[in-house]
Amino acid sequence: MKITIKDIARISGVSITTVSQILNNKGQRFSDETRRRVMKAVEENDYNPDYFAKNMVNRESKTIGMIVPDVTDLFFSKVIEGVEAYLTKKDYMILLCNSNHSHEMEKDYIKQLLNRSVAGILLASPNSLELETSLKSPYILIDRGLNTRTEGNLLVKEYDGSYESVQYLINAGHQKIGMLTNESGYYPMSERYEAYCQCLKDNHIAYNENYLEDGPVTIEGGYRAAKRLLEKTDITALCCGNDQMAIGAYRAAYELGLNIPKDLSIIGFDNLEISQYLNPPLTTVAQPAFEIGYTAATYLFQSINQPEKKVPNKTFGTEFIVRGSTAPIDN
Amino acid sequence: MKITIKDIARISGVSITTVSQILNNKGQRFSDETRRRVMKAVEENDYNPDYFAKNMVNRESKTIGMIVPDVTDLFFSKVIEGVEAYLTKKDYMILLCNSNHSHEMEKDYIKQLLNRSVAGILLASPNSLELETSLKSPYILIDRGLNTRTEGNLLVKEYDGSYESVQYLINAGHQKIGMLTNESGYYPMSERYEAYCQCLKDNHIAYNENYLEDGPVTIEGGYRAAKRLLEKTDITALCCGNDQMAIGAYRAAYELGLNIPKDLSIIGFDNLEISQYLNPPLTTVAQPAFEIGYTAATYLFQSINQPEKKVPNKTFGTEFIVRGSTAPIDN
Repeated sequence: MKITIKDIARISGVSITTVSQILNNKGQRFSDETRRRVMKAVEENDYNPDYFAKNMVNRESKTIGMIVPDVTDLFFSKVIEGVEAYLTKKDYMILLCNSNHSHEMEKDYIKQLLNRSVAGILLASPNSLELETSLKSPYILIDRGLNTRTEGNLLVKEYDGSYESVQYLINAGHQKIGMLTNESGYYPMSERYEAYCQCLKDNHIAYNENYLEDGPVTIEGGYRAAKRLLEKTDITALCCGNDQMAIGAYRAAYELGLNIPKDLSIIGFDNLEISQYLNPPLTTVAQPAFEIGYTAATYLFQSINQPEKKVPNKTFGTEFIVRGSTAPIDN
Repeated sequence: MKITIKDIARISGVSITTVSQILNNKGQRFSDETRRRVMKAVEENDYNPDYFAKNMVNRESKTIGMIVPDVTDLFFSKVIEGVEAYLTKKDYMILLCNSNHSHEMEKDYIKQLLNRSVAGILLASPNSLELETSLKSPYILIDRGLNTRTEGNLLVKEYDGSYESVQYLINAGHQKIGMLTNESGYYPMSERYEAYCQCLKDNHIAYNENYLEDGPVTIEGGYRAAKRLLEKTDITALCCGNDQMAIGAYRAAYELGLNIPKDLSIIGFDNLEISQYLNPPLTTVAQPAFEIGYTAATYLFQSINQPEKKVPNKTFGTEFIVRGSTAPIDN
């Protein structure tokens, strides 16, 4: 039979209120002896305070909600791992929601999360949000700065990372440099695109709109976009929206009989674990997915526990990693 | 100011109990007019019933817990996607826990999930569990049949899948066939190993223990294990514990100057999305990760809502998919 708080009170010879207050760390006014007696009864009888009843007092669900556009995306699974690593230390858990890139589902999930009284929300979203009206709980956005705000802004130096990769290709003799972008998904990549344009300009290379192709930021999306691009142009190098797209681009190149890097240099963005194992290993711009998740969780936790304190902003650097998928142009 | 149930009662001119019962679908005894009045007040004032207070009545958290050994494992992120796809339709959410393959963390998470009154638990575990004593809630295991039970057993025809792949290699002329196994992780792979042994035997090929190597079921684990194996033997084909290990084995082969499939045929297990994009595309044994997750969620839901009914068992078939990583042996 389930042990109740009534039983614990009876066994330790105190009132139910006393047990409740001691279990909720509000028992300072009781003697050490009383506290010890109650805790002993709790332990010996393996008493598990009812979570919801406890919650009515504490107002703490000890859960946070996390919404990601795609749980099978390798970047986000790494972000989730970072969030989990921090929260586990704090005995918090994640209610995970997969929005499938849909704004409708995001709004629906936010509502459901609030109904579950989550302590806060981590929202990785490709969409602009009317946050003032919709979010009544602490939150941190992982949104690439899409929504304007003065605190809790987590950014990655995408412009610098992208510029560096394009400059690297130009230094290696490339002039016909393609780019796989994504206009509508999580990676609007406007910064990467602007860096690409600026870098070409700084190097007096004419911009050619035929060298750009748009697609979903998935392996298949990269495959299809790269295939279209490689069939209609004679580019010698390709900057991909992310590593997943680059993996798809590898396949497109091989199907068209192109050797990487001899005929085509390819650069990704993310530095997924898998990228160093590709054939050839992928040259890429690394961004710290685990650390982004870990930091987002840290900030959310601060925002929950010290709501009066301003949440810091943080900008993460990138690192350009040269591997076997890029080579100087064969003249 | 937050609208409370008291306000709704006042506005609609009924008692708090009436509002509560109507909101909890227990208002059959009230007139349509009363119900309509209450719902109108709820809508017009954007009243959000307090989740925990509601829970005290309903005893429904509308969440399930899910524990996976590694959230960044490509197989499990696909399983999670399947679980999510089913639960979303039912307005249920997932509390996601990453056990890092640790039995201690699993036990700890189970406790925490029960404290949060989850409706049930999906446990993907590499470990044997003393379930009778520890789990007091509905649960479904994704454990490769590791724990004996008569219902809710989700199995994959691993023996058949493995046998088919080894036979395929033998038919293609291979005699020196290696295998990457994992004795301690999520994939004990005893069935796959037994099928490998039996298939060799059925084909009168001597078993050679040097052709086996053990490692974690990750890309890096596969890389290291394959490297050890390829450095010490002259195998012409390699069956990998899963696709992730196969990706690592590709790298090991290339570092040793081996061409796939000319010098070495490689076969994986899982059929991850990425596998068809590898260079060369990976020959593998497909198992339906999404469907396994979806089915597990369906069964858990049944187990929650119809506890008196026996949960079915289900065995998923595999499919052998031949791609470019395998070739007849060059005599």
